[in-house]
Amino acid sequence: MENELRIFSGSSSREFAQRICSHIGVELGRSDVINFTEGNTFVRIGETVRDKDVYLVQTMGLRPNDEFTEILFWMDAFKRASASSVTLIMPYFSYAKGDKKDEPRVSIRARVCAECIELAGADRVVTMDLHSPQIQGFFKKPVDHLFALPVLCEYIRSMQMEDCVIVSPDAGYVKQARKFSSHLGIPTVIGDKTRRAHDEHAEILELIGEVKGKNCIIVDDFSISGGTLIELTEHLKDRGANRIIACLSHILLTDKGVKRVEDSVIDKVISTDTVNNPYIKQSKKIEIVSVAPLFAEAILRIHSRVSVSPLFEELPDEVIRASLRRF
Amino acid sequence: MENELRIFSGSSSREFAQRICSHIGVELGRSDVINFTEGNTFVRIGETVRDKDVYLVQTMGLRPNDEFTEILFWMDAFKRASASSVTLIMPYFSYAKGDKKDEPRVSIRARVCAECIELAGADRVVTMDLHSPQIQGFFKKPVDHLFALPVLCEYIRSMQMEDCVIVSPDAGYVKQARKFSSHLGIPTVIGDKTRRAHDEHAEILELIGEVKGKNCIIVDDFSISGGTLIELTEHLKDRGANRIIACLSHILLTDKGVKRVEDSVIDKVISTDTVNNPYIKQSKKIEIVSVAPLFAEAILRIHSRVSVSPLFEELPDEVIRASLRRF
Amino acid sequence: MENELRIFSGSSSREFAQRICSHIGVELGRSDVINFTEGNTFVRIGETVRDKDVYLVQTMGLRPNDEFTEILFWMDAFKRASASSVTLIMPYFSYAKGDKKDEPRVSIRARVCAECIELAGADRVVTMDLHSPQIQGFFKKPVDHLFALPVLCEYIRSMQMEDCVIVSPDAGYVKQARKFSSHLGIPTVIGDKTRRAHDEHAEILELIGEVKGKNCIIVDDFSISGGTLIELTEHLKDRGANRIIACLSHILLTDKGVKRVEDSVIDKVISTDTVNNPYIKQSKKIEIVSVAPLFAEAILRIHSRVSVSPLFEELPDEVIRASLRRF
Amino acid sequence: MENELRIFSGSSSREFAQRICSHIGVELGRSDVINFTEGNTFVRIGETVRDKDVYLVQTMGLRPNDEFTEILFWMDAFKRASASSVTLIMPYFSYAKGDKKDEPRVSIRARVCAECIELAGADRVVTMDLHSPQIQGFFKKPVDHLFALPVLCEYIRSMQMEDCVIVSPDAGYVKQARKFSSHLGIPTVIGDKTRRAHDEHAEILELIGEVKGKNCIIVDDFSISGGTLIELTEHLKDRGANRIIACLSHILLTDKGVKRVEDSVIDKVISTDTVNNPYIKQSKKIEIVSVAPLFAEAILRIHSRVSVSPLFEELPDEVIRASLRRF
Amino acid sequence: MENELRIFSGSSSREFAQRICSHIGVELGRSDVINFTEGNTFVRIGETVRDKDVYLVQTMGLRPNDEFTEILFWMDAFKRASASSVTLIMPYFSYAKGDKKDEPRVSIRARVCAECIELAGADRVVTMDLHSPQIQGFFKKPVDHLFALPVLCEYIRSMQMEDCVIVSPDAGYVKQARKFSSHLGIPTVIGDKTRRAHDEHAEILELIGEVKGKNCIIVDDFSISGGTLIELTEHLKDRGANRIIACLSHILLTDKGVKRVEDSVIDKVISTDTVNNPYIKQSKKIEIVSVAPLFAEAILRIHSRVSVSPLFEELPDEVIRASLRRF
Amino acid sequence: MENELRIFSGSSSREFAQRICSHIGVELGRSDVINFTEGNTFVRIGETVRDKDVYLVQTMGLRPNDEFTEILFWMDAFKRASASSVTLIMPYFSYAKGDKKDEPRVSIRARVCAECIELAGADRVVTMDLHSPQIQGFFKKPVDHLFALPVLCEYIRSMQMEDCVIVSPDAGYVKQARKFSSHLGIPTVIGDKTRRAHDEHAEILELIGEVKGKNCIIVDDFSISGGTLIELTEHLKDRGANRIIACLSHILLTDKGVKRVEDSVIDKVISTDTVNNPYIKQSKKIEIVSVAPLFAEAILRIHSRVSVSPLFEELPDEVIRASLRRF
Repeated sequence: MENELRIFSGSSSREFAQRICSHIGVELGRSDVINFTEGNTFVRIGETVRDKDVYLVQTMGLRPNDEFTEILFWMDAFKRASASSVTLIMPYFSYAKGDKKDEPRVSIRARVCAECIELAGADRVVTMDLHSPQIQGFFKKPVDHLFALPVLCEYIRSMQMEDCVIVSPDAGYVKQARKFSSHLGIPTVIGDKTRRAHDEHAEILELIGEVKGKNCIIVDDFSISGGTLIELTEHLKDRGANRIIACLSHILLTDKGVKRVEDSVIDKVISTDTVNNPYIKQSKKIEIVSVAPLFAEAILRIHSRVSVSPLFEELPDEVIRASLRRF
Repeated sequence: MENELRIFSGSSSREFAQRICSHIGVELGRSDVINFTEGNTFVRIGETVRDKDVYLVQTMGLRPNDEFTEILFWMDAFKRASASSVTLIMPYFSYAKGDKKDEPRVSIRARVCAECIELAGADRVVTMDLHSPQIQGFFKKPVDHLFALPVLCEYIRSMQMEDCVIVSPDAGYVKQARKFSSHLGIPTVIGDKTRRAHDEHAEILELIGEVKGKNCIIVDDFSISGGTLIELTEHLKDRGANRIIACLSHILLTDKGVKRVEDSVIDKVISTDTVNNPYIKQSKKIEIVSVAPLFAEAILRIHSRVSVSPLFEELPDEVIRASLRRF
Repeated sequence: MENELRIFSGSSSREFAQRICSHIGVELGRSDVINFTEGNTFVRIGETVRDKDVYLVQTMGLRPNDEFTEILFWMDAFKRASASSVTLIMPYFSYAKGDKKDEPRVSIRARVCAECIELAGADRVVTMDLHSPQIQGFFKKPVDHLFALPVLCEYIRSMQMEDCVIVSPDAGYVKQARKFSSHLGIPTVIGDKTRRAHDEHAEILELIGEVKGKNCIIVDDFSISGGTLIELTEHLKDRGANRIIACLSHILLTDKGVKRVEDSVIDKVISTDTVNNPYIKQSKKIEIVSVAPLFAEAILRIHSRVSVSPLFEELPDEVIRASLRRF
Repeated sequence: MENELRIFSGSSSREFAQRICSHIGVELGRSDVINFTEGNTFVRIGETVRDKDVYLVQTMGLRPNDEFTEILFWMDAFKRASASSVTLIMPYFSYAKGDKKDEPRVSIRARVCAECIELAGADRVVTMDLHSPQIQGFFKKPVDHLFALPVLCEYIRSMQMEDCVIVSPDAGYVKQARKFSSHLGIPTVIGDKTRRAHDEHAEILELIGEVKGKNCIIVDDFSISGGTLIELTEHLKDRGANRIIACLSHILLTDKGVKRVEDSVIDKVISTDTVNNPYIKQSKKIEIVSVAPLFAEAILRIHSRVSVSPLFEELPDEVIRASLRRF
Repeated sequence: MENELRIFSGSSSREFAQRICSHIGVELGRSDVINFTEGNTFVRIGETVRDKDVYLVQTMGLRPNDEFTEILFWMDAFKRASASSVTLIMPYFSYAKGDKKDEPRVSIRARVCAECIELAGADRVVTMDLHSPQIQGFFKKPVDHLFALPVLCEYIRSMQMEDCVIVSPDAGYVKQARKFSSHLGIPTVIGDKTRRAHDEHAEILELIGEVKGKNCIIVDDFSISGGTLIELTEHLKDRGANRIIACLSHILLTDKGVKRVEDSVIDKVISTDTVNNPYIKQSKKIEIVSVAPLFAEAILRIHSRVSVSPLFEELPDEVIRASLRRF
Repeated sequence: MENELRIFSGSSSREFAQRICSHIGVELGRSDVINFTEGNTFVRIGETVRDKDVYLVQTMGLRPNDEFTEILFWMDAFKRASASSVTLIMPYFSYAKGDKKDEPRVSIRARVCAECIELAGADRVVTMDLHSPQIQGFFKKPVDHLFALPVLCEYIRSMQMEDCVIVSPDAGYVKQARKFSSHLGIPTVIGDKTRRAHDEHAEILELIGEVKGKNCIIVDDFSISGGTLIELTEHLKDRGANRIIACLSHILLTDKGVKRVEDSVIDKVISTDTVNNPYIKQSKKIEIVSVAPLFAEAILRIHSRVSVSPLFEELPDEVIRASLRRF
């Protein structure tokens, strides 16, 4: 009764798309991306998509300008090839960080990207852990906004640590940290700092809550240089914390950031595979859990017209198992 | 060399618009609003606006549906009457509170309003203290986002209290509270609570920082029922606070809310005239400072093509004087 | 083969939507409307609508600004919740009265509302007896424009009066009055008056045709104050008319208007349930026939992809029976 | 201080545009229209229009498809040539007759034309005596809707006839006829007929008011075949009318229609030069008054940013003189 | 499982649409086009199209303004009649010739037409041998761009001539001529000339390749006056060519053009039925092969959701047979 | 009388923008571009642009995805900062090469870029030597399309070579090559080859015209690998040509391409500074003439509202002198 479902991958998410397809049990759609020597990107769909429901998997990760431009060309190509609908599966939306005019005469980059993606032809977007929830409103089309939290919490549970606390690295993240606390049934500790504009270095101010002898799970969106994370880790250690685990939605650590983590007293960094980060293989401290099964489940639900919102809270067993499997 | 500037008022901001006009020294444009007995609203511009730069002052305050619908009709009327440009002066944007999908299957009402206002013809919007800074990105057209903070701080300074602290009523407001602290050169204290969805009652959890013997200035966007405010006030008093002053951007207190404030141990509530609130006359504790001079200054700068951003930090002396004048 | 049909109700048409659902034999969709104490309206769909064909029933009646704003939020909520299509069932479109610029520097309010409704997400509109047929052209999306005439005529027939004439209250309504005449096979009489702009009081000028000893059926869109209606009634009585029945598409009579009807020599006012009017219960002279079965029939035809236009002329028996049933 | 004003003419309004230019005292802009032998129309602007305010005069008259298509190309050419603004002067809008869906499964042609004209680049439209006032609402951009009535009334006054009545050819035109009556201070007589769909022949039913010994001025939008007009004329003569003058906004009479007028007992047909009708030269009964001076006056007012609405009622002396001058 | 397919015809392609329907084995949809005496075109769909997939066949041929305007009204009528999708089958797109600004201050007419067609409601366009391939990019919606080449080559093959060459009439057409060469396995000869702007007369400069004793097949988009074609023919004859066959995508020859062909030494002109050209019946030299079966095949593929692109290269046998059948 | 003119530079055209500013005699606007370590680009305007006419110079050259994304953010930043108009000065438009669907299921990338640039806020685009003239039609806003030809010809003239011919590298470029011939008064020779899809290697087929003893000026849009150019050069040398000069609109040669040129028998490559190519400094054979003075002249004409088209043919003396000056 439904149109056929076809999943394709852009150049930034080949492995992630493959994991989705394996979970669903379909083959990845045929397609090419050519990067010409003069710099232009060219995309080509390798099979008919006429009146099919197309899902294009392309994260906006470490080369956001290339990945964004490629998204636009994919959307246009699918529309001109008469796909019935085109859903953009964008596990990470890098430009979501540009969601406001925090100084005069700048662009609201997340809105620019959202509008162009819709103009180029996206009928729906599925993404994860946006920088702020308001970003959904930059899109006119439906956005399914998934959360990494239940997958990350499953991993933490599987570590079977006792006497844990969730640590929020600043006051602004408390709301989110409390969700981890409530999901895992453990207390929240708040670190509070001030971040200077466009400066990745930050200043830790205070620590509210008891960490002595506790296993501390620092939760955050992402870390780029690892700076804040390691400073906070040292602070926690000074206060007598036991193990320190960082739990990040998106793994944006640079080459140097990975090295700094490796050299630090942090015990482990847990994150997801939303970003295809080549540097993380250099560190044994970084563990990746896959959210591809969760995206796969969302696609299946979208395609069989059932509600996606139950996935915000609780995951089906096969999604849990698939997420925690090493790869 | 410029088009002529004309300021008009919708039905929700007659006095505010009059204050702007007095500050600038122009006469308010002639216009009518008729509310027919069957419920329809009708607007009519009473003078030619052909090729003029029009500023329509209409807050979205205590009757937001009427005020919003009227805004749309004004925008259309000015465009069809061939105004050169139409700027909406909307001191308070009530539906800014609906800026995200915090549960499934709801509307992002702030985006709906923003889009309709632009569709109807607004070329620019000037507003104050939006519920979240991302809301600027719901508009495609330029938004001048003014802050009440410098005006409110001037008032606080004029009270000449010693030994003050700024109190943030929850962790989410800390960033904003720190701006008051930094502007006034006094410390921040954080109260932290959790708010249940669509429930105006909230639960205070902890207080971080010293309040004993201090004059406490609680800062917040707004209060509706006064509930959180008074709970926090009592908490502060229990902890030995001296005077308690609440400082709100927008005065949304209901009839009951005003009464509750009146009956409480709170010393004073300071707010602005962005919302035309009839209940506040019943309370001697509530002091209103006018931000109309600040909007007037913004209009003058827009009209003479100079930058508005300096007003985000520091106010010209005549604006300070005009703001603090009783009316 | 089709998507599932789900009917929902906004706050202005609960009973009307219930009547539609009863006629079709489906349950009304679950949904909430909350009017917060600070004035904001909030809507929430209470069940999944992913890929369903949604029909939202919301008239724009006696509180048009609230009802219009709520429509916009419903449209957006359904679209963001991934409904396959959203049809607005708007039995009465109050702002249709604002369909032209009959004086300089006013808004064309019906166009503003039509555009915003489409922008917010309506894929189709079903409405009844628009103030002028051109209003369909204010919408870009398909409009199914139903007529109350066949239902009203069935009621008149059921009264089994002899020697009747249709009376048009002014020359502008003659075209519409002739349709009643032709449907019932009785002559038309024309009253002609001039209406002053934005003045609900009007002046009857002349009467063309014979009314002596006749049962007169005055037909009109609506009456607000009852003024024109009663003046005409008295005029007809003076000329020797027998019974006087007014037959109105939409029942907008105010509190006072109902009282005036009650106190007059008019025998009966027949109208439909397009507007949820609380005042009419105060009068025994006002009879309401339900057009909900007709809307139900239109929905069924839209949903099973058959033509709606046959309903413009002749009604299926079960619709007739359901319409005339007292409730 | 203003941009320079330039007036151009499309192929359907060369003379009319020339009359406007003479009245204003500017030269007509240089431009070409080529109709290629294979049927395509090509337009070319013959001088720079960069940052000028352009007025393109092109009626949609007797070859509406050619004239409409040419309008679109002009709009695009002016926009791509960087005109500051483009105003379409369209004295007659032929497709205004298609303003509603009076039967199922037809197009609302006036809305289609309006949207395309705006899409192609028109910033404003100036037109005259639209088929229905709602058509203004089919445009999103400002429309200046001029009336031929004051010019036609001046001509009637100049005929210095006594004992006149205005005759409305049907009930639907009464509102308009009354405006002539009120402007000239003479009574209205109503003829009433029914028009069958898409049939230009009509049936006169009744005549309300006294015409015996009167000079009758029949007023109407337009006549195509002359049928209704002559039927009514005969009817009036039968009832003892004296002279019969028809007064039409737009002169659409066909070859045959002109002949029929010529052969009839009608005394005179007065109309305007909104339509460039080649057949009228064959009749001595047809008198044309020019509304080009009125359009010229409107252009001057638009260009010098003063209100156009005073022209709806009263004309400056030089416009009256210029309108009545023979040409 | 699919929506029902319905094929309708505009006034310019009755026979062509009939041929499509015969090939598919469906009946042509009922519809009317009325051209009123005052010039307006009116379209009416004669059957319900609610939720059907509609294909409207209307070429833009020898009366492009009428045909274009009619297309817009059809699109709007189908959309307002709630068709599920509307595909415009436009075998020839006359205004494609206006695809660039080759001089200052002209319109890009192909873009104007493309945008208006989409605005009016077309969801997809199927056309043939566009003047330049870039024109697809003037449309935002999918365009299926068919080629007459395989059908024309089948005809040439059926002529069983030996010793043939393809002749390109100018350097700009070489790319296209080579495709004929490669399809038929014969060499290309290049004629090169310069065309003056907007002048249908051209100057042949040189001839590259051997034509002595060869059967020459001149290939081109179209010819209007026949001028270039006959000049080239004479040139080829002078150089000792054997038979001369012209092979044109679209048959735009005027009355005079046909006569000139008839009087010339050219042996045969082969073209397609994309344009409904009444003059060609006057010549025995002109042979028309039908591309209606190819369009029929494309429609079937679109409707059964399979890829259209295989038709660009190779035709199914039944399409070949149907194309070459005389009619 | 005009708004102030301000010229800004994106990160890809700093030097080019500086040359424009020097020619005009204004200072380059202050602005920053930050490329964050996680990959995001951030732009900030460093001075007020309220109601100014802004010209943003940013070529889309060797890093087209970064340069395109940056363009979008600039457009948005200028619009939100209330610039009166924003003109994009894009000397080279790399994605213009993607102007058609030459195979199924690909994107029309030039249209995608054009639409996004307009959506983001560009009011006008000034560019040079587009890959095909139809690309202007991908933009809705005015495009000023400049030609490098007069500047390149001036350079050629300054070389004072005798006995020259223009060589077109393929039949498709003949039209353009003839313009050089006509401008310089020398003959055209045609090389003809076939290019395989997405393959930069091409096959030379034939040479039409005499080259023995001649100085050959090969003209082309661009060369990437230098392959075609050098093959043709060798071919010409084999045929007895004297000096070989290549004359390219845009200098896209890669590292390898430059080396290949250096190692070849080609005498000189002349091109413009539309692309900021770091490799060319490695070759003494490559000469760059600046088209910045020509863009400067175009900006001045746009800003003083005079026609730009004269620059298509003939250059003012100071532009010639400035272009040929070494830098």
